[in-house]
Amino acid sequence: MGSGKTARMKTALLRTALLAAAALLPLAPSTVGAQTPKEVVDAATPDEWQEIAADDLVVMILTPDAAGDEREVVIQLMPEPFSANWVHNVRELARAHWWDGLSVYRSVDNWVVQWGAGEAEKPMPETIRDTSADDYTLNWESGILNTMWGSFGRRPAEETYDNMDGVGSWFNDPYSSAIGFAQGLPVASDLETQADAQGERINRPTEIWPVHCYASVGVARALAPSAGTGAELYVVIGHAPRQLDRNIAVVGKVIDGVEHLSVLPRGTGPAGVYETEAEHTQIISVRLASEMAEDERPRYRFLNPDSGSFADWAELKANRADAFYTVPAGGADVCNLSVPVEPVEDEAG
Amino acid sequence: MGSGKTARMKTALLRTALLAAAALLPLAPSTVGAQTPKEVVDAATPDEWQEIAADDLVVMILTPDAAGDEREVVIQLMPEPFSANWVHNVRELARAHWWDGLSVYRSVDNWVVQWGAGEAEKPMPETIRDTSADDYTLNWESGILNTMWGSFGRRPAEETYDNMDGVGSWFNDPYSSAIGFAQGLPVASDLETQADAQGERINRPTEIWPVHCYASVGVARALAPSAGTGAELYVVIGHAPRQLDRNIAVVGKVIDGVEHLSVLPRGTGPAGVYETEAEHTQIISVRLASEMAEDERPRYRFLNPDSGSFADWAELKANRADAFYTVPAGGADVCNLSVPVEPVEDEAG
Repeated sequence: MGSGKTARMKTALLRTALLAAAALLPLAPSTVGAQTPKEVVDAATPDEWQEIAADDLVVMILTPDAAGDEREVVIQLMPEPFSANWVHNVRELARAHWWDGLSVYRSVDNWVVQWGAGEAEKPMPETIRDTSADDYTLNWESGILNTMWGSFGRRPAEETYDNMDGVGSWFNDPYSSAIGFAQGLPVASDLETQADAQGERINRPTEIWPVHCYASVGVARALAPSAGTGAELYVVIGHAPRQLDRNIAVVGKVIDGVEHLSVLPRGTGPAGVYETEAEHTQIISVRLASEMAEDERPRYRFLNPDSGSFADWAELKANRADAFYTVPAGGADVCNLSVPVEPVEDEAG
Repeated sequence: MGSGKTARMKTALLRTALLAAAALLPLAPSTVGAQTPKEVVDAATPDEWQEIAADDLVVMILTPDAAGDEREVVIQLMPEPFSANWVHNVRELARAHWWDGLSVYRSVDNWVVQWGAGEAEKPMPETIRDTSADDYTLNWESGILNTMWGSFGRRPAEETYDNMDGVGSWFNDPYSSAIGFAQGLPVASDLETQADAQGERINRPTEIWPVHCYASVGVARALAPSAGTGAELYVVIGHAPRQLDRNIAVVGKVIDGVEHLSVLPRGTGPAGVYETEAEHTQIISVRLASEMAEDERPRYRFLNPDSGSFADWAELKANRADAFYTVPAGGADVCNLSVPVEPVEDEAG
């Protein structure tokens, strides 16, 4: 049966790889002491934050909940070149107001909540692009990422594989060789070993792909070779289903309001589809922030994974030392390193 | 600052460790082909299943939902000796019907839903035991586990570290050296290297502890050194918060009805506590199945992690090859290896 045939390198090799192949996190002196991760984020300097472009933000408004409260869900789209054709389609469908009046029709516990409609159900804009499973992964190109990232960036280069204690051991992804972030959204990579000019083994990233974490948004599809259009989307509402990585297009992540989707009653029909229309949640509108009047656009920023505060934050996430914790985990997985995002306060307000 | 000082060994060493220290999964020839994991579970033989003891099942009944439907949540308790004092307390509180009339008072997205009351709020049975953070972890004892488990059990012993392709690379836990199962519930372990009689390095488990996955149930507590009594419990409703491992007592896992808790509206007060009593969900009763009349007891069984079908299932979970998947993940984390559990059909029924 099938199995991962790509050579997977381990932590020791990764350290070398990332030193060779990508910019590293600043090795700022740790000043984190018994701070909480939140305290580190709160103390980050303005230049360590990066605002998300309005064209990368999708705003979905659902009908009000039972208490009459507004339900707004904000999705950050994957940056180019990840999932580019699907992201293009999502933008085109938003511009066409295509989802308005459709609904959330599926909810499965510890799995996904799903909305939209198939192209057979509703004609789609002519600007929709064809999609292909070939584009679930990309070949490595420098410049498409924030720092490709793991514990290695925080370890002295002379550490050997046998020296496994300390924070250096905290990066071990069962699903990839290395993790990183693209505009703050999680990605993973495989590596291959090459000889450098001196005949030393170095490891370079080969394929790179977006990963599924809690709140990740992906493109529903039929059986392969269908790759989906983007007209039906799902959000992850449980433990990261990383087995979907490289099998489905990830187009972004809900950065605000995911709770409006995660609390929806679970569907009782086949595959968690609601059995009656009455159970659906109606979509009032889906818009790109860039379509909205400038003073009505939501604005968000993420803590840049290249920043020193991010490095401190991630190390603390892996090794909590504040009052609640007595044993540091000694590790963290990419989906527990959810990049801090916050609204941008209006300077005039 | 604190960091994991326990020596952590990596996959290559783990393989040796588990061959040395624990029974291994049967190396049955793979017959899984393009089956789905569910098909493997459905084809498991009766002797590969193990029924959960009635004294290890806790049944919580909530008031009916808005549609008038019953809400029943079933928790499987951790077996001895894991979290033994807390599990004792949970049984005593259930026997005293202590939770009846209390409520679910907290809900935080991608984190926990919590219920019960503090001992200051309601007098507790005299049989409640003191608890200590020292008991979050156990020293290794053989016999307390189903097989301690990783990919190594499925790899030829002669494979070397440099040979990283194939399914063998799929076990890499950033939070521990090895994963396993105790009565089907997930646990993790650290290893230490020792010399055997021939002077060869072998790796033996040292500490072992229950882990937090989706649906895991833990004991809420105040700041350390408080270790909580068990009177206030939470269930995980998001990505596995493994940083809580060894910092909180895990007492079990919801094996049925977790959706009755995961869909509850998120609290808007501090720490996700509901701001009004009206938002609470009332608990009608919490009972041990062993307290219930024999013909009213719910019965469940889990697929034994020592079984060949479990091994096939886990390998398939890590390397999906059925029609929906085009790229096998090549890995799986312990929380995506949620041990299959199903109701036991009444033979007379």
